[in-house]
Amino acid sequence: MNADKVPDIIIGRLPVYLRALQRMVERGMRTTSSQELSEHVGISAAQIRKDVSQFGEFGKQGTGYSIPFLIDKLREILKVNSIWDVAVIGAGELGHALSRYQGFTDRGFRVVMLFDNDPSKVGKKVGEFVVEDLALMVERIRNANVKIAMLTVPASAAQATADKLVQAGVKAILNYAPISLNVPEGIHVQYIDPANHLQRMTYYL
Amino acid sequence: MNADKVPDIIIGRLPVYLRALQRMVERGMRTTSSQELSEHVGISAAQIRKDVSQFGEFGKQGTGYSIPFLIDKLREILKVNSIWDVAVIGAGELGHALSRYQGFTDRGFRVVMLFDNDPSKVGKKVGEFVVEDLALMVERIRNANVKIAMLTVPASAAQATADKLVQAGVKAILNYAPISLNVPEGIHVQYIDPANHLQRMTYYL
Repeated sequence: MNADKVPDIIIGRLPVYLRALQRMVERGMRTTSSQELSEHVGISAAQIRKDVSQFGEFGKQGTGYSIPFLIDKLREILKVNSIWDVAVIGAGELGHALSRYQGFTDRGFRVVMLFDNDPSKVGKKVGEFVVEDLALMVERIRNANVKIAMLTVPASAAQATADKLVQAGVKAILNYAPISLNVPEGIHVQYIDPANHLQRMTYYL
Repeated sequence: MNADKVPDIIIGRLPVYLRALQRMVERGMRTTSSQELSEHVGISAAQIRKDVSQFGEFGKQGTGYSIPFLIDKLREILKVNSIWDVAVIGAGELGHALSRYQGFTDRGFRVVMLFDNDPSKVGKKVGEFVVEDLALMVERIRNANVKIAMLTVPASAAQATADKLVQAGVKAILNYAPISLNVPEGIHVQYIDPANHLQRMTYYL
């Protein structure tokens, strides 16, 4: 397994495969082929076979892939075979939605804490959480050994908050603030910005 | 201008440049260099120069880029020099948040309608919108000539709803449902799925 050398673009497709396979299992399917999976994910069967083969021989000529086996392997590769604790920073509308989102647990994540700096929000209940004071974030995250955060603060506060997350030991930030973050080497950032995604499509319209 | 042949990966970086330039203007800056922009977006100066030069000669050796000029050019390239109307499908927590999000207008978009099939939601006010009946969506979108939709319905309803959007004349779908969509050629789909983004990072942890 040359996992260290697998291009990031391949890594980016694995969650898409895993998600489709999990939906197949929910519908009672046990085996699939790269061709069938291709129809579900919109990526060619050849590409799927090539991507998956980076990590070993998971399919059999003629019989295809065992779905539960491939799910286990992909979970192991993506390190979501156990559950990661996640902190949500910012208890606005988006922070609320993420804290209550039911779709994380079967994909390897659970929200365990939610922070805001607005005194009118701190102490309030959001789903099963009490909004905690942002001033205590670094200590709380460090003590709980949380490594992943979702950042939903305003753009003007995002870099300073990200710096504190890094200080608290967070290694992966999913950033919803519409700004690029500067983080030290070894810290991973992914971006969700709907306007960016829309602009990427209008180019082609 | 060989815009037709510009690789999609370059197109994907243009919104990031545009966003950073817009923040610079807000802070009163008028000119920048590829080096300075590089520090804001975390992409190398050489890459920025190469990406931008695909579309013409926008910078001057020594003096760099005029920020307002480069913003205008990028808006033109991305076709966000006028405002696109957007429909939000699904009036759950995420649909609410998107309908009220203030960050779209200065980036080329405005939400103009919001649909749901839940009778307890239809007719209710969300920000400045009244939630409309999903059963009327195709007609409403077609009559209003809306070409872009954000899809926030449950995964189980996403494909059928996407089919209706295509039927209504929508050309670009930002899909928040955790499922890959099958759409005809010429229809653009972008995906936002936080669990996918998180899994892409846990691989490296």
